[in-house]
Amino acid sequence: MPLPEEKQNKERRQRILECAVDLFVEKGYSNTTVREVIAKSEIGTGTFYNYFSDKEDILKTLLEEFADQIISSVKNYYTKEKDLRKRFIETKRLNMEAFAQNEKLTEIYCRVAGVSDVIDNRLKHFEDRLIEFFTKNIEYGIKKGAFNDVSAVSVAYAILAVEKYLLYKWIVLKTIGKEEMIEMVVTIHEMMAQGLLKK
Amino acid sequence: MPLPEEKQNKERRQRILECAVDLFVEKGYSNTTVREVIAKSEIGTGTFYNYFSDKEDILKTLLEEFADQIISSVKNYYTKEKDLRKRFIETKRLNMEAFAQNEKLTEIYCRVAGVSDVIDNRLKHFEDRLIEFFTKNIEYGIKKGAFNDVSAVSVAYAILAVEKYLLYKWIVLKTIGKEEMIEMVVTIHEMMAQGLLKK
Repeated sequence: MPLPEEKQNKERRQRILECAVDLFVEKGYSNTTVREVIAKSEIGTGTFYNYFSDKEDILKTLLEEFADQIISSVKNYYTKEKDLRKRFIETKRLNMEAFAQNEKLTEIYCRVAGVSDVIDNRLKHFEDRLIEFFTKNIEYGIKKGAFNDVSAVSVAYAILAVEKYLLYKWIVLKTIGKEEMIEMVVTIHEMMAQGLLKK
Repeated sequence: MPLPEEKQNKERRQRILECAVDLFVEKGYSNTTVREVIAKSEIGTGTFYNYFSDKEDILKTLLEEFADQIISSVKNYYTKEKDLRKRFIETKRLNMEAFAQNEKLTEIYCRVAGVSDVIDNRLKHFEDRLIEFFTKNIEYGIKKGAFNDVSAVSVAYAILAVEKYLLYKWIVLKTIGKEEMIEMVVTIHEMMAQGLLKK
């Protein structure tokens, strides 16, 4: 019994993405060609272009879906937890777990910066989505009267900065372990929460 | 009247470093060769090797001297200001001003990460010096009873993370201006100070 076309399309697209991720980690994004992605995915060249226009389009898709995943894990948690202090801290643990569960995507995220302006713009878009999400949540806390009237966007930058730097220490420098990384991010946000919460 | 040899040596070394910085910014560190540094410095090849062993040695020297400069500007300030809250915040302004006054070195610092393991190790050494310095100062505040008994090294990571991320937004992405960058770093540390200082 042949697969329904839609399901087959989805699986093929997924296979291309997975093969691309493997190659980007193994050889580096810059050193990987579309030809290699096609060969590894075992599809025809024409088929490839039904799904993606070029290598950058793959990276764009990977980062889009990664951002969706990180944000949706936090949204699920929000439906269960209403305490704003706990939310501020525990969502950072969820973020780090989402990164840690996707080691390869995290490695690509930590390594592709500075490669070219096009890539930097893609990364900026990925980070802007996270920053926008963090900012909204801090603004909500301020509006509810739980947080001090701080610059929400500055705090959002601080959150991403801390997450990104500790990811880099874990996956690129390998000077801290996964658990240690998560605990450090939580510790830093516990301290930040002290400055954020109204007395 | 010929220059005393020592002075001449110092000037020549400085010229090589300056030419290398210009080339690293213009062409990127990876795309610059020692041959080009020699040509731009207008010295003999033999003379070059009296000062540096290779391109990595130049980068190492640049980052060493940059770290010295950043740390010494803060040490000078410490002799004048004794209030630990002000110190925690204003030293971050001094750090950012030191980066801002050395745009080219800052650009190299923000762009060379991920190029190779050797470079990442050099960057790690540069960052470790700053982190060690931050950690000592936080430990001093804890010992004096002014700061809460937090994980000093986690706070130090948070400081560097924030500084590095906002430098990247300024010099690579160009989405914030120099003054805005400095003010954001100060704002974030004002909030962190709230969590750090004993009530």
